[in-house]
Amino acid sequence: MNPSAFVLKGIFLDTPAIGELRCREGHALCEDGVFAGFSSELPAAWAAFPLHDYTGRLILPGMSDLHLHAPQYSYCGTAMDLQLLDWLQRYTYPEEGRYRDVGYARQGYARFTQDLLHSATTRVSIFATLHTDATLELMRLLSEAGIRGYVGKLAMDRNCPDFYREETGEGLRETRRWLDACAHGEYPGVMPILTPRFTPSTTDAYMKGLGELSREYGVAAQSHLSENLDEIRWVSELCPDTRFYAESYSRFGLFGGEQPCVMAHCIYCPEEEDALIRKNGVFIAHCPTSNENVIAGISPAARYLREGYRIGLGSDVAGGHTLNLFAVMAAAVQVSKLRWLYTDKSQRPLTIPEALYMATAGGGALFGKVGLFEAGYAFDAIVLDDQALLNHLPFTPAERLERYAYLSDGRPMAKYAAGRKLF
Amino acid sequence: MNPSAFVLKGIFLDTPAIGELRCREGHALCEDGVFAGFSSELPAAWAAFPLHDYTGRLILPGMSDLHLHAPQYSYCGTAMDLQLLDWLQRYTYPEEGRYRDVGYARQGYARFTQDLLHSATTRVSIFATLHTDATLELMRLLSEAGIRGYVGKLAMDRNCPDFYREETGEGLRETRRWLDACAHGEYPGVMPILTPRFTPSTTDAYMKGLGELSREYGVAAQSHLSENLDEIRWVSELCPDTRFYAESYSRFGLFGGEQPCVMAHCIYCPEEEDALIRKNGVFIAHCPTSNENVIAGISPAARYLREGYRIGLGSDVAGGHTLNLFAVMAAAVQVSKLRWLYTDKSQRPLTIPEALYMATAGGGALFGKVGLFEAGYAFDAIVLDDQALLNHLPFTPAERLERYAYLSDGRPMAKYAAGRKLF
Repeated sequence: MNPSAFVLKGIFLDTPAIGELRCREGHALCEDGVFAGFSSELPAAWAAFPLHDYTGRLILPGMSDLHLHAPQYSYCGTAMDLQLLDWLQRYTYPEEGRYRDVGYARQGYARFTQDLLHSATTRVSIFATLHTDATLELMRLLSEAGIRGYVGKLAMDRNCPDFYREETGEGLRETRRWLDACAHGEYPGVMPILTPRFTPSTTDAYMKGLGELSREYGVAAQSHLSENLDEIRWVSELCPDTRFYAESYSRFGLFGGEQPCVMAHCIYCPEEEDALIRKNGVFIAHCPTSNENVIAGISPAARYLREGYRIGLGSDVAGGHTLNLFAVMAAAVQVSKLRWLYTDKSQRPLTIPEALYMATAGGGALFGKVGLFEAGYAFDAIVLDDQALLNHLPFTPAERLERYAYLSDGRPMAKYAAGRKLF
Repeated sequence: MNPSAFVLKGIFLDTPAIGELRCREGHALCEDGVFAGFSSELPAAWAAFPLHDYTGRLILPGMSDLHLHAPQYSYCGTAMDLQLLDWLQRYTYPEEGRYRDVGYARQGYARFTQDLLHSATTRVSIFATLHTDATLELMRLLSEAGIRGYVGKLAMDRNCPDFYREETGEGLRETRRWLDACAHGEYPGVMPILTPRFTPSTTDAYMKGLGELSREYGVAAQSHLSENLDEIRWVSELCPDTRFYAESYSRFGLFGGEQPCVMAHCIYCPEEEDALIRKNGVFIAHCPTSNENVIAGISPAARYLREGYRIGLGSDVAGGHTLNLFAVMAAAVQVSKLRWLYTDKSQRPLTIPEALYMATAGGGALFGKVGLFEAGYAFDAIVLDDQALLNHLPFTPAERLERYAYLSDGRPMAKYAAGRKLF
């Protein structure tokens, strides 16, 4: 008998296809961290395994947060009334700069990790800061907590304040030191990802060096793409040889293809950029709360999803105000309605099953077989306590999910990642 | 010594002017349910009064919810993916129809009242159902809980399902029976308000009768106005003698002037309608979460507010998904950003102090001197527990308020309405 195996019982909801919400009540077997089978009645062969009995509770795949800035967590929901540039100068850069001090970083990241642990998220793709040692500290904290995914030391050598900028060569040396420090599984479940903040903050020389490191170490990359029109114009001035923004990454091998790649936002991509995203299998991180808060505009996420692009959700803390991916799901539906109304009648609004797909199967694919309750998938699961939302009405599981998305604080009562029970 | 007097201590935030956030740390005196004075140090003359000590806590005026449908609370956050008409037919009318059974109504309204009690709201303007006795039951529950404001028995005699419609004469007789049943203060703090659902559901004859009852009993009125373009077109067909939607109410004396009046939404008002709103002192209930959920479009609330119209916030449960007026405040800011981006650069987005103004002083004015910490104002106050949102950063009270609006569940730790401590 496999000593790590166990059985989880409850009402399992997942999204085997876009727009489809599958609901199965019964028992799921976890073996070696992997989903190994489902049965409505408990099979005799499973009776010897420990039973985690959540009868009547909703159980969803653990969620994937494809875009968030960990050092910004401490002030999320603050100064959302400021203009974006003021907000960066007055909040983001000063606070991120303080992460030079590893003790300070540990304090901030420990709190971040605790709150993330108790959220719906099991997989992440995180922006840290410029600082190698602070970034390693974050990787250690996440790994110990059982949160899995990518963490990126930022690369940033222009258009940022003096107190928070690297010299190109030093930045590349530090990036190599960082990759070496996590090259041998020092942080189980947590991997490095190359992270130029965005093209305006990273010179061609730095970008070129990152591309070489990506090939040498076989490392993924992430950044921002086409979030607003001023940014796109700026990139075209900084990189006059490119036909569109994505080329400022792709020409250095930092835009998918060989290695996984995540690009946040993708709100105003021209057709050729869309084609390259699709061809290279780049993951789009749709960040609807951030779309509203920083007035970027609303991403055409419904089109990307329905046309078969790889797309997941991002909290984009702290442009997004919350780590709660249920709230991000609800916001995805809400802003897609306003996009439909104001700018694009060609795509009907997103639905909750579609938003759940992005939060689970869609984004989970960045991490391998993640985000579904199917054989061979990582056993990532969250158990929801929605007792406070039940009443005299006979809600279906789909309705319970929707109410949980709109009304709960998104903190599950139990959580598993790759078969490990995190709480 | 006044036996009902007490002193409340903490950090008081309110909005004496639009866009201004006043912050005072110290002691507030409540006498006979009214704010009677403020002092940073405890005056000797107040030392004999009981001290409710919330040192370090944020204290805000109790909030006013100018528009919500109490019988829809049980399914808020459900089926938000449906088209509005499907949602009305499949959820709203069947559930509201069940409130014919007073026992059923009591169950639903008791839960609603409990959750409302523990929200930030102290004052309400509520739509109930057609049913007189169920509506009286809601008034009793609210009054006993200490929630104050208006409750309306619906008036609806056309364009609704057979199982949930009144005959005009019967509806007017029931309305009179209802007004008589609460004419002598039977429900302390809770008053009746005449409530034609909206013009398409209420014939001219019924509207005329309601106008006569309004004058006879001196009763306020509420309804919906100019929420979407199809509705406006429909009203112009139903009421060919009117120049604009509001006239379908005003020609029967149901649009402010003599009696208080609240109109929900006001998203697409033509200039003449705006002029009548202003002239008659009609309160606009801005419902930003509903604007998104039912795809009505975003109200020009920033303009109304800054041009001096009377305007407050409404949760619009269940077109709005939540009773939490802090979430509604944050949504007001968020959707105003998208309105600025997509349709109207003439008004900069709303700010959190402006949203707080609407939630307190703005909406509170419907109920008299309500929504400020100033002498003579009703002592409505909520004490916030934001300990979970504090961290290593030195947040100002304004920042703490903003984070609470974006990130909390909006349930205060203590609450007062007209000087009565509700919990």
